Amino acid sequence: MTPEEKLREMGIELPAIEVGDRPLIPWVQTGNLLYQSGRTPGESHRTGQVGGEVSVDEGYQAAREIAIGQLAVAKAALGELGRINRVVKVLGLVNSAPGFGDQPKVINGFSDLLVEVLGENGKHARSAVGVAGLPGNVSVEVEIIFEVRAGG
Amino acid sequence: MTPEEKLREMGIELPAIEVGDRPLIPWVQTGNLLYQSGRTPGESHRTGQVGGEVSVDEGYQAAREIAIGQLAVAKAALGELGRINRVVKVLGLVNSAPGFGDQPKVINGFSDLLVEVLGENGKHARSAVGVAGLPGNVSVEVEIIFEVRAGG
Amino acid sequence: MTPEEKLREMGIELPAIEVGDRPLIPWVQTGNLLYQSGRTPGESHRTGQVGGEVSVDEGYQAAREIAIGQLAVAKAALGELGRINRVVKVLGLVNSAPGFGDQPKVINGFSDLLVEVLGENGKHARSAVGVAGLPGNVSVEVEIIFEVRAGG
Repeated sequence: MTPEEKLREMGIELPAIEVGDRPLIPWVQTGNLLYQSGRTPGESHRTGQVGGEVSVDEGYQAAREIAIGQLAVAKAALGELGRINRVVKVLGLVNSAPGFGDQPKVINGFSDLLVEVLGENGKHARSAVGVAGLPGNVSVEVEIIFEVRAGG
Repeated sequence: MTPEEKLREMGIELPAIEVGDRPLIPWVQTGNLLYQSGRTPGESHRTGQVGGEVSVDEGYQAAREIAIGQLAVAKAALGELGRINRVVKVLGLVNSAPGFGDQPKVINGFSDLLVEVLGENGKHARSAVGVAGLPGNVSVEVEIIFEVRAGG
Repeated sequence: MTPEEKLREMGIELPAIEVGDRPLIPWVQTGNLLYQSGRTPGESHRTGQVGGEVSVDEGYQAAREIAIGQLAVAKAALGELGRINRVVKVLGLVNSAPGFGDQPKVINGFSDLLVEVLGENGKHARSAVGVAGLPGNVSVEVEIIFEVRAGG
């Protein structure tokens, strides 16, 4: 089953990706590494700090949506998700209320989705840390590096 | 026009880079990737948190100065800036007052300068996030990865 | 002297590394780059924020222990530490009390250990920044990228 078929089976539709004409772009490929910009969750997600206004479960769901968005970026970059050899590295940033220490439980929403869709190739090195603020006061932001293979 | 000519036209002089003899060095090249240490702005910039003592515009100017510094590091590493194939990835860290969520507006000072000097090759993947503190209480720190080509 | 011999001379024993069966794994190698997940110090280290409950020296010692742990991960990945060509990049994250700005002094515990064990090859590009929270309220987390060579 391709990752696209798996997503369909899971009832997940990838969002549209706009590249735009700004210094900041959604991805850069160098050699067989695909670096993707940090992504944040959509507007339906509660803003604020996890451990404060935002619960761990809400953060988990936001991180899961970000993973879907990062797969959409990879598809825009690669044409098909089957060109992903594996996930290399994830940096998960959680807007954290003072004293909050469950960042891994939040970023698991991102990591779990990758493995559900990509299987073994979805496993990755990761850091999950608490930041003092994020753009637009969103609760989570995640950046990712994929190893990819040439298209055919 | 070379990047060096462009900088001259803009009236920008690159600062001197000291490598020193410490465990921490300004850059490491591996293959055709040039990883550069996080840089902070010079002492003329106001210290403190953006959204607090430091305004967004002051943060933007600090980020712009850091970009000039990172180009100086790249020149020290490469001999000439024409060896930069492209910017791969930028991580922008903004010392953020509670509730501040305009990190992208600050790090745009870094991103805009890169594109002014390097053109299309200056576009990059990026994350811009809020941290709880930075060395010496500076307002901004930015690290960068370039893709480079062999010298001639 | 091999890095393993150097560690023995220093009286340092590498901890055991468990890979487990989770989306998050301790390392991913892509080409000759070895990306390692962020690591935190063991339970004997005081939790909390540096500049608050945790002193700079305690943070330094925690960072030093993390470096030993990251070498243990590299050994698990590579078989022998002699396959490390060099350290490429370190991201040091310090759980920082408000106003704390001595993150570099803390992460030096990590950097110094690398150079003690690996010599010149231990030097690296680095960022050392203050975060708002870390998993389990630990004081420090550090992630690392090594350049490695093929085994023989």
